Amino acid sequence: MIPIERRLAIEDLYAEYASAIDDFRLDDWLTLFAEPSSYQIVPRNNYERGLPLALMLCESKDMLRDRVVALQQANEYDIHTDRHLISGLRVRGQAGTLIRVEADFAVFRCNSEGEASLNAVGRYLADIRIEAGQARFAQKTVVLDSFCVPHAISTPL
Amino acid sequence: MIPIERRLAIEDLYAEYASAIDDFRLDDWLTLFAEPSSYQIVPRNNYERGLPLALMLCESKDMLRDRVVALQQANEYDIHTDRHLISGLRVRGQAGTLIRVEADFAVFRCNSEGEASLNAVGRYLADIRIEAGQARFAQKTVVLDSFCVPHAISTPL
Amino acid sequence: MIPIERRLAIEDLYAEYASAIDDFRLDDWLTLFAEPSSYQIVPRNNYERGLPLALMLCESKDMLRDRVVALQQANEYDIHTDRHLISGLRVRGQAGTLIRVEADFAVFRCNSEGEASLNAVGRYLADIRIEAGQARFAQKTVVLDSFCVPHAISTPL
Repeated sequence: MIPIERRLAIEDLYAEYASAIDDFRLDDWLTLFAEPSSYQIVPRNNYERGLPLALMLCESKDMLRDRVVALQQANEYDIHTDRHLISGLRVRGQAGTLIRVEADFAVFRCNSEGEASLNAVGRYLADIRIEAGQARFAQKTVVLDSFCVPHAISTPL
Repeated sequence: MIPIERRLAIEDLYAEYASAIDDFRLDDWLTLFAEPSSYQIVPRNNYERGLPLALMLCESKDMLRDRVVALQQANEYDIHTDRHLISGLRVRGQAGTLIRVEADFAVFRCNSEGEASLNAVGRYLADIRIEAGQARFAQKTVVLDSFCVPHAISTPL
Repeated sequence: MIPIERRLAIEDLYAEYASAIDDFRLDDWLTLFAEPSSYQIVPRNNYERGLPLALMLCESKDMLRDRVVALQQANEYDIHTDRHLISGLRVRGQAGTLIRVEADFAVFRCNSEGEASLNAVGRYLADIRIEAGQARFAQKTVVLDSFCVPHAISTPL
């Protein structure tokens, strides 16, 4: 079991992760990733077979930053709001300064009329680095149970 | 970061909040509000524009109490049960004895045939007072992403 | 309020409970039950009236084990994946070495095409035993709000 301070720092990271996306504060969301870091969304059926194809793959923090700028300035997608629920945080191991953490998530989406629907469910697999009490993602893989995505993936999962 | 005891007291407040509504123990739910206190449900699109119109507004604890008595004795509404999931608790500041806390929620509803559906998603914004180890809401704002409410708002969100 | 170590052990139990089912690691799921232990799924409308009829009733750990083997080797049911979200853990009492704990849950399900839907919502009522820092279920009752089950109950709730 890891020290309670680290556990709470990881809880806070996930709470802020959800909040930054759902408030569309994507610059704040970027600050939750370490340098270097990576982020990918992988369908569960590919993940379990060890197949590499991802729905989204950002191999560096600059790729993530590029995506955020595109979302803020260039992309066109349906207007909506997101709401993340995250539970079941579990530490799966430690290697050096990295802590491997799993969690379960559901993302709900509301359209511009305020109608809610279930958008995505799955599991987060992450390598988290804690420095000066602040936890950040060094690597994050979103394993998507609901790989039949009802809407284009625009805002991050 | 706030002391761990206060953090756990806030977690317990939210767990009991969900439980009291979902068990239809509305008198217990009332005890989770401080004196004085307020409660409102605001559509997200109004909230973000700074527009004051609320779907529900109880500016005092007596107004909340009145609403509970109405639900228990007078109102007619569709028979259903609620189930709240709440995650992502995050402390946003402290002012005197008040702690500002955000959280994410989803409410599921089952009709009298036991059929489940998603009823509401959004964010809780609260000012919480902790006295003698017991946390209570001095102010609670439900910012409703799903402002197109599929059913009348009867039981509290 | 129970000691923080016990509280975290209970949180970990629920996180692993969700993970073991959702990863279809049912042998691991079995290890989360004490010896002796029981597990049942009861419709909320029966539970609240004190009526004994359950949708599933395993009165011993061997009955649970039998069910797991059946799921792994014999049963035929629609191919799907589960995703549990659990929140609102609350301690309701202690009797000897047992801690009574409630929690809220939602289970989402994805079919073989990766399409997600809400499958079940309700409340967990459990008697938990903690030995050597490890929490296990001595008794678990799933009170199912959504007793109109859209799919056969195959994998555990």
